[in-house]
Amino acid sequence: MNLKKLLQKSNVQPYLLSARFGLEKESQRSTLTGQLAQTDHPEVLGNRSYHPYIQTDFSETQMELITPVSDTITGVMRSLSAIHDVAIRSMSKQEMLWPLSMPPQLPEKDTEIKIAKLDQFEAVLYRRYLAKEYGKRKQMVSGIHFNFEFSSELVAQLFSTQNQYATLETFKTDLYMKVSRNYLRYRWLITYLFGASPVSEEGYFVEGEEQPKEPVRSIRNSSFGYTNHENIKVSYESLEKYIHDIHEMVETGLLSEEKEFYAPVRPRGGKQVADLAKTGIRYVELRNLDLNPFSRLGVESEALQFIHLFLLYLLWTDEKESAEEWIVTGNLLNEQVALGRPDSKVSILPEGERIFSDMLEMLEQLGLVEEKELVASYSQQLYAPETTIAGKMWTIINENSNQELGIIYGQEYQAMAHEKSYQLAGFENMELSTQILLFDVIQKGIQVEILDEQEQFLKLSYQDHIEYVKNANMTSKDSYIVPLIMENKTVTKKILHEAGFRVPAGDEFSTMEQGLLAYLKYADKAFVIKPKSTNYGLGISIFKEGASIEDYTEALTLAFKEDSAVLIEEFLEGTEYRFFVINNKVEAIMLRVPANVVGDGRRTIADLVAEKNLDPLRGSDHRAPLEWIQLGDVEKLMLKEQGYTIDSIPEKGQTAYLRENSNVSTGGDSIDVTDDFDDSYKQIAVEAVASLGAQICGIDLIIPDKAIKGTKDSQTYGIIEANFNPAMHMHAYPYSGTGRHLTMEVLKLLFPELFT
Amino acid sequence: MNLKKLLQKSNVQPYLLSARFGLEKESQRSTLTGQLAQTDHPEVLGNRSYHPYIQTDFSETQMELITPVSDTITGVMRSLSAIHDVAIRSMSKQEMLWPLSMPPQLPEKDTEIKIAKLDQFEAVLYRRYLAKEYGKRKQMVSGIHFNFEFSSELVAQLFSTQNQYATLETFKTDLYMKVSRNYLRYRWLITYLFGASPVSEEGYFVEGEEQPKEPVRSIRNSSFGYTNHENIKVSYESLEKYIHDIHEMVETGLLSEEKEFYAPVRPRGGKQVADLAKTGIRYVELRNLDLNPFSRLGVESEALQFIHLFLLYLLWTDEKESAEEWIVTGNLLNEQVALGRPDSKVSILPEGERIFSDMLEMLEQLGLVEEKELVASYSQQLYAPETTIAGKMWTIINENSNQELGIIYGQEYQAMAHEKSYQLAGFENMELSTQILLFDVIQKGIQVEILDEQEQFLKLSYQDHIEYVKNANMTSKDSYIVPLIMENKTVTKKILHEAGFRVPAGDEFSTMEQGLLAYLKYADKAFVIKPKSTNYGLGISIFKEGASIEDYTEALTLAFKEDSAVLIEEFLEGTEYRFFVINNKVEAIMLRVPANVVGDGRRTIADLVAEKNLDPLRGSDHRAPLEWIQLGDVEKLMLKEQGYTIDSIPEKGQTAYLRENSNVSTGGDSIDVTDDFDDSYKQIAVEAVASLGAQICGIDLIIPDKAIKGTKDSQTYGIIEANFNPAMHMHAYPYSGTGRHLTMEVLKLLFPELFT
Repeated sequence: MNLKKLLQKSNVQPYLLSARFGLEKESQRSTLTGQLAQTDHPEVLGNRSYHPYIQTDFSETQMELITPVSDTITGVMRSLSAIHDVAIRSMSKQEMLWPLSMPPQLPEKDTEIKIAKLDQFEAVLYRRYLAKEYGKRKQMVSGIHFNFEFSSELVAQLFSTQNQYATLETFKTDLYMKVSRNYLRYRWLITYLFGASPVSEEGYFVEGEEQPKEPVRSIRNSSFGYTNHENIKVSYESLEKYIHDIHEMVETGLLSEEKEFYAPVRPRGGKQVADLAKTGIRYVELRNLDLNPFSRLGVESEALQFIHLFLLYLLWTDEKESAEEWIVTGNLLNEQVALGRPDSKVSILPEGERIFSDMLEMLEQLGLVEEKELVASYSQQLYAPETTIAGKMWTIINENSNQELGIIYGQEYQAMAHEKSYQLAGFENMELSTQILLFDVIQKGIQVEILDEQEQFLKLSYQDHIEYVKNANMTSKDSYIVPLIMENKTVTKKILHEAGFRVPAGDEFSTMEQGLLAYLKYADKAFVIKPKSTNYGLGISIFKEGASIEDYTEALTLAFKEDSAVLIEEFLEGTEYRFFVINNKVEAIMLRVPANVVGDGRRTIADLVAEKNLDPLRGSDHRAPLEWIQLGDVEKLMLKEQGYTIDSIPEKGQTAYLRENSNVSTGGDSIDVTDDFDDSYKQIAVEAVASLGAQICGIDLIIPDKAIKGTKDSQTYGIIEANFNPAMHMHAYPYSGTGRHLTMEVLKLLFPELFT
Repeated sequence: MNLKKLLQKSNVQPYLLSARFGLEKESQRSTLTGQLAQTDHPEVLGNRSYHPYIQTDFSETQMELITPVSDTITGVMRSLSAIHDVAIRSMSKQEMLWPLSMPPQLPEKDTEIKIAKLDQFEAVLYRRYLAKEYGKRKQMVSGIHFNFEFSSELVAQLFSTQNQYATLETFKTDLYMKVSRNYLRYRWLITYLFGASPVSEEGYFVEGEEQPKEPVRSIRNSSFGYTNHENIKVSYESLEKYIHDIHEMVETGLLSEEKEFYAPVRPRGGKQVADLAKTGIRYVELRNLDLNPFSRLGVESEALQFIHLFLLYLLWTDEKESAEEWIVTGNLLNEQVALGRPDSKVSILPEGERIFSDMLEMLEQLGLVEEKELVASYSQQLYAPETTIAGKMWTIINENSNQELGIIYGQEYQAMAHEKSYQLAGFENMELSTQILLFDVIQKGIQVEILDEQEQFLKLSYQDHIEYVKNANMTSKDSYIVPLIMENKTVTKKILHEAGFRVPAGDEFSTMEQGLLAYLKYADKAFVIKPKSTNYGLGISIFKEGASIEDYTEALTLAFKEDSAVLIEEFLEGTEYRFFVINNKVEAIMLRVPANVVGDGRRTIADLVAEKNLDPLRGSDHRAPLEWIQLGDVEKLMLKEQGYTIDSIPEKGQTAYLRENSNVSTGGDSIDVTDDFDDSYKQIAVEAVASLGAQICGIDLIIPDKAIKGTKDSQTYGIIEANFNPAMHMHAYPYSGTGRHLTMEVLKLLFPELFT
């Protein structure tokens, strides 16, 4: 089978780079000053026994971050980024993730290195065995496992083009076996480029133990690292032999379990090695990446992209020796490179040059010319060892110790995770409410799939329980009719009215004529004219003391420009509050103040706006808790009505409003007042929402005087609107007052079983 | 208290004509040849014990149609119209509603007149008492009761303007008492204008019984009609006296129950007369309208409008005598008019002239000038008795018998109700699915309120159970997330795919660049490019045998014009069927054929379209089961692709298509094929809908060969779309095949308690 030819076929071409990726990244939790953390795994992360994203590896301090599988490297990196954010923000602010593969200085006594406190007794027993067999210190090394799968389309296209294999399964298995053997043969290049464990801290190697001559490129990937004893030999000639050898070693007791076989590359299928016989190989697990301390996440996208191309090359390039010889050579070369000085070139430079020139040639022949630049750039590192990761580390390492390096970078990454704590790294382009919900979802160990990113559509699952969520709070918990009721103001008002709540009296018109006929009813009253479907305040006119027939006609005309149905409503005097009701409880109450600046007698309105917009909580397009204040036509008109221009200088303490409407989305301020209200108004809000049949609702009450107790059948309040997808981010990070974490309430509603 | 002055105040003016109206209309069920029906009350109407709209009065054949209360006469008339439609279509096609107040020729033996078969034994006992006390025959007369209430705004404005009354309740009660007294005094005018029982059939009056000298204006409203015995006297001087007198007569046994007091006008409050003491008078019930045989519904809007103005006049005009004298006079005048010949003028012409001129004067003073025309037109009838209803009847009555008149008009109205049987009279402007649902709702006795007519928003209630419905099948039974899933094709496909169903493979693009990159993947395949949110087929391109890069680019461009996200999908070969799934059952399967005509070798396409559009099932805008075929640009282009223009003459048997898409909404034909499918495909549809979590869904399957059994994990089918508000009217009245009554299934889902 000539894979070079197969890969060049036109039906294969569109799928050459399609693949699936997953990452598992271990890190030690340490204090900000580089001591191993003495705390337990953060309780807020829930039970490790099922957590899909954040686990512990060998020790209680060794966090393992696991991404879901992704079709793109960007995707897997953003997942890792988010999980990273969640992990760090779930830890004490006095702790950080140690950014190096080699552990920080370990406690003198082994007993102070705590094995992970897992529920399953077998898991604990296994770790105790490892501690005894290899020593606890070796187990404290961390790294990255990279799970890689050629896309099913690519494999299927290749399969359809060949005629040697009868079944797709055996074909696929053999592809991966070839890649695995070649990986073992050529992995020294990965060690050279990405090795990042040049030195160990004092006490890492037990006294008397044989030690490498530091600095090296990668202690972890050398025979001094975390490897099996020498008598462990497993053939990669075929999957059958691989399975057979591992089984035999488990049976003869050389290995305690299958998973004790630590190869730099593992073929993967089902859960157990034995399953491989049935499933065939579905993907490979690369286990030899050290943590890159210069990367916030321990690995860069470019590295993964390069490895992807490298794996394609391993599929492309022919093997030149028998499996056994091929791997023995590979192991020898890797050991040599791993134990070489990080500031030296490799002795096998010519092989390195050949690999790179073959890779470039392959890219050329496969038409993947855009990828050549990346490969070319990595090829330069052959001649400049100081630009490899280990090389760079060595240039800044003092007195053969990683410690300072780890502290500096660890602190930096910890600070980054806490900096814009309302965002979720990797998902900043999604709506903020969805980001916050995703944070909670990851923290609570609920599996998440982003079904449609632009549409903020998530699939959440915990065990067999699946829930879909759109825009962070549109869920299965509300019925279909509920949003339909709420998006129709007339219907909402009728239902609330029939249920005994106070709503503004009014009429609905579908023609100007109807509207004009009603003039006399409203002429002397306080009233509002608005389009039936309002859109950020467009087409709304408020008359607080009646209106002339001319103004009334004008207001109707404006409203009919926005909608074919227009409402006229009694104007209710008072302050408008947003009550956020979920699961029959008021979880937040917010006062929203229209976009404004307060004068200092010195600066212009434009300057004051610019300054107010510097607040890190402000941004745009629902991606920040507050929005930037604009200086557009609407704002200028509003200023004009108060006798200002943007160049006016308001007096000290004088408030200039830039908007009539108080929406946070148009630059308004959000002020949490949840604790300022007694139960009476909360009760009204809860009952009103219940009468609409809603589980999640932002209901807007006008309250003339909140010091007076509210009663349902009185004028102490009026309900002016109910919203079926109420904003949550503004409650979480208000302009002032206490933040209310509403997304977690959504999760409680969706997955009560997780909160019992 | 000077009501004339009060009514002229400017705060009162906007509300002068605002009022609430309700109708109760009795009719005998008869055969098409005018015999009293021998059948029971239609079973399909369910249990009379709670039916809010269709009841039986005295006899099993006497249907009583009851409208809900409405703010407008148009509203109350449309309700009556719809209830009428439902009543007639729920009866045997051999029966009709007798259009006259006087019953058709009654059976000789009293025993053949069957008392209504009611569940409540007291109700049966009461009817037995009536039969004994007044004779069964008298009880067979039918009429209309008109419930009238001045609007609360009008009463409140009047109240706020006076200073004689301390409470709104006593004020309101006295208003209605005045109106009632005046009504009794002047009701002869109503008898004159609307009396419509000039003659009785042989055997109606028992032999030897005193009889009127026929023809008269209104037997029913005379002392020969359905009235209390002469010793029943009730004062209308005040509400207290009214209540007291009735109580006394019940206690002394002169009346068996309060409701046996038959006055032409009854003050109404709570359920019982006794309740009036607590509630005060809330409205009045006018009981003296005969059925107008010249009106399909037994009464014309104009008559109600006139009576409304007449009641306003009764409020306006002063009483000139004591209550007792006033009423005695009124009764005498009414008896005189009722028993006058229908072709004669009244002897009290001057009083009639005064009433009309006073009414016109009132309208002038109140600024209600537009109403004057109606009043003026009725005033002419004073001088032309042959234009009154009784007058008109008499001109066509043969040999002193109503019988023929009743048969002719009864048959006509019966035919009208059956004519466009897919419509619901009075609601033809609503979507057809909603009309059909409303029909079912009325038939099943579910209370309905139209919350928003334009938006097809209904409130349904049965006892304490409330359901809201929009567009006939958007309900509380589906969860909020379900329509959100279905309106997102990518999400729908992902969920179906993950659940193991076959969906077309594909990609989603948000830029042209992304789309172009995927060209090679699709170049040689059968595929479809479409905007993510399709809108009646706009922007869709189908390539059944691959595409050139130019055509591919063009198709992407077209799709991006419609949406910012574009899908490319594998094209599935086969026939598309719509499966309508509700409550985990396939209730209908439909084949939709694009708009087409079949040639006859003689006529042009334009002619063939015109002829096809004559089908009474075709209409526009979802108001008919099928839509008219258009001849617009899209259709012309489609014809062009087949080598036609609209003037082409296709050969005999040749089909010319006018649309590519098969939507019924663009003139397609709907063919019911429910019974052509075995369970295998139904099972797939049901499971797929369940995987989306939907209760009501129209799911579209492509099936290459329905003769082959469908299996979930095979290529026997592919799912291409799921619709959350699937059309139902096209299933109810298909172009060909059996109609499927899906709206009733919606009701079963909403109100299972009604169908057990």
